Amino acid sequence: MASSKQIFIAIIGAGGVGKSFLSQLDALASRRPSPKLNLIYISTSKKALYDASYSPIPIAGAIEKLATVSQAPPALPQLADYLAAAPAKVVLVDNTSSQDVADAYPDFLGRGISVVTPNKKAFSGSYHLWKDIFAAAEKSGAKVYHESSVGAGLPVISTLKDLVDTGDHVTKIEGVFSGTMSFLFNSFAPTSGSGGKWSAEVAKAKELGYTEPDPRDDLNGLDVARKLTILARLAGLPIESPSSFPVQSLIPKELESCTSGGEFLQKLPEFDMQMEETKKAAEKQGKVVRFVGSIEVASKQVKVGLEQFDASHPIAALKGSDNIISFYTERYGSNPLIIQGAGAGGDVTAMGVTSDLIKVLGQIV
Amino acid sequence: MASSKQIFIAIIGAGGVGKSFLSQLDALASRRPSPKLNLIYISTSKKALYDASYSPIPIAGAIEKLATVSQAPPALPQLADYLAAAPAKVVLVDNTSSQDVADAYPDFLGRGISVVTPNKKAFSGSYHLWKDIFAAAEKSGAKVYHESSVGAGLPVISTLKDLVDTGDHVTKIEGVFSGTMSFLFNSFAPTSGSGGKWSAEVAKAKELGYTEPDPRDDLNGLDVARKLTILARLAGLPIESPSSFPVQSLIPKELESCTSGGEFLQKLPEFDMQMEETKKAAEKQGKVVRFVGSIEVASKQVKVGLEQFDASHPIAALKGSDNIISFYTERYGSNPLIIQGAGAGGDVTAMGVTSDLIKVLGQIV
Repeated sequence: MASSKQIFIAIIGAGGVGKSFLSQLDALASRRPSPKLNLIYISTSKKALYDASYSPIPIAGAIEKLATVSQAPPALPQLADYLAAAPAKVVLVDNTSSQDVADAYPDFLGRGISVVTPNKKAFSGSYHLWKDIFAAAEKSGAKVYHESSVGAGLPVISTLKDLVDTGDHVTKIEGVFSGTMSFLFNSFAPTSGSGGKWSAEVAKAKELGYTEPDPRDDLNGLDVARKLTILARLAGLPIESPSSFPVQSLIPKELESCTSGGEFLQKLPEFDMQMEETKKAAEKQGKVVRFVGSIEVASKQVKVGLEQFDASHPIAALKGSDNIISFYTERYGSNPLIIQGAGAGGDVTAMGVTSDLIKVLGQIV
Repeated sequence: MASSKQIFIAIIGAGGVGKSFLSQLDALASRRPSPKLNLIYISTSKKALYDASYSPIPIAGAIEKLATVSQAPPALPQLADYLAAAPAKVVLVDNTSSQDVADAYPDFLGRGISVVTPNKKAFSGSYHLWKDIFAAAEKSGAKVYHESSVGAGLPVISTLKDLVDTGDHVTKIEGVFSGTMSFLFNSFAPTSGSGGKWSAEVAKAKELGYTEPDPRDDLNGLDVARKLTILARLAGLPIESPSSFPVQSLIPKELESCTSGGEFLQKLPEFDMQMEETKKAAEKQGKVVRFVGSIEVASKQVKVGLEQFDASHPIAALKGSDNIISFYTERYGSNPLIIQGAGAGGDVTAMGVTSDLIKVLGQIV
């Protein structure tokens, strides 16, 4: 149905995911004439591009233009005022990993502003925030989608929602939820061959850009714990926070106090023996070691850490930095529904955000 | 948003999928008070339960009640008249595999009636019908969803649509698309051990209910060809019909003329040597043989038939009667996005239909 309807898009965040998303949004806007997608706000933590009359910002050059302005972003409550007063429906795209922005979702949603985001913080913070977010959306009719908060563009959240919404009973979710951890263990403990030293693999992963600037932010397991928190809540478990279940950290106690990622990497070789022993113990059983997360729904057990797997197990056979997520359910029986592929990277993360946006457009236009 | 909105549901088909769907619909209707889902029509090819005033039919006992009526179903044009005149929006759920019903989709859709269905015929018949269906939906704003037409409830169609809609370029799709073929080859040519005789595996699959009443309806490859046609079209290839690309049939020429599935099964052992040779040829290369479909998008090559795979390949490592579908795309690079799990069965097929219905409700209410 051709129509002159327009939707306003507001974007917070212009990093790797933000850039990929803008390029996908640009292509989407030119492919689909209706509804007209008008970018009316874009900001980083330092700068914001927008005006009082909601003038459309050309999507193609938005980031370059943002770099040239000197306007600071409004405080979040003022941003909510600005967007709520807009003369069209607004979708806010949060491409940050900011807790502050996440904390403001209930305000945005309650005022009719839909939210799409890869930001894990909103859905893996306090259970109170989780409830506030969905209650605000329910009340106003605004939509909130966050596919890329787990497994980037892989259809993980949507599949779990479909299982639950159609009345299946999820019994267990298990998988490798971190591209970094996947890469590290696929190299350190391959199913054939012997693999490198642990510290050398960590250094290589950092060099290739597979880790956070400080690798401890991957090795502490918190990123995986956040993803498990989201999935467990969607499966019906009222998980209080990512610290309310056991999470194994791969940072040696002695190195927790290093003042920098560089110092950590320098001292890590002293602890290679610990990981080597873990690997050998698995090999003695004919197995390999992997860093996995699992949710047992009936017993409400969520945990994150090292587990051993047969070489023929799909989790052991993973390649590169792929994620794998297995859903065990009543309907699917003994063989789980499995989703596998790249779970990190700007383009595939932005894909999840863009497909969420398309879903929201289908519902609010 | 609580509202008094109601949606009318009309169902054609009350077989295995139809029964599972009704039970999921019943649960859905009681879980979600809004919109109110009113079943106003249900039919088999012989009987129909409905009345002139669109009275709601209790969902729970609908199939039992349908069995007691003597009313014949209206012709499809009359059914379209009846549904188009309804005082609420209508979703038609086609749980048949009827070409006649599929041929009527453009009429239903053009008159504003949304369609959700696992029926492959509509989307894998003539390319003309495909175009008519989506043109009719586009024009009226009615929705058409068919997740379960490939891989049952596995998120295959939705994932491919998300990839395409967000601007990724699918380069290749490859997989095992038939639960029957999966079961047969996982048993006949396992990655470890020697497997049974071909004819014995076919007989066993039939006994376990994994084949059509006449196993030739699986072995001719047409079911897989239909699914490939659907995926290729969604990936942008204007495939004319499932017979416009090479499809390898596993029915020996001499047995094509058997007058029954029983006669076919009786004579099949005479041809075991052919399949045994195929298996041995693969084993000589250290590989196993599998019945797969593949789509090479750039070269527009679609084909269905036997291929050899390393034992460590995800297609070789499949279990039971699982399907596996790999999407190779520009964004996902060398490691494909993989979806795996049960691709047949009443409950998981109905799950795809129910989740489609939920998506349609989100858009038309």
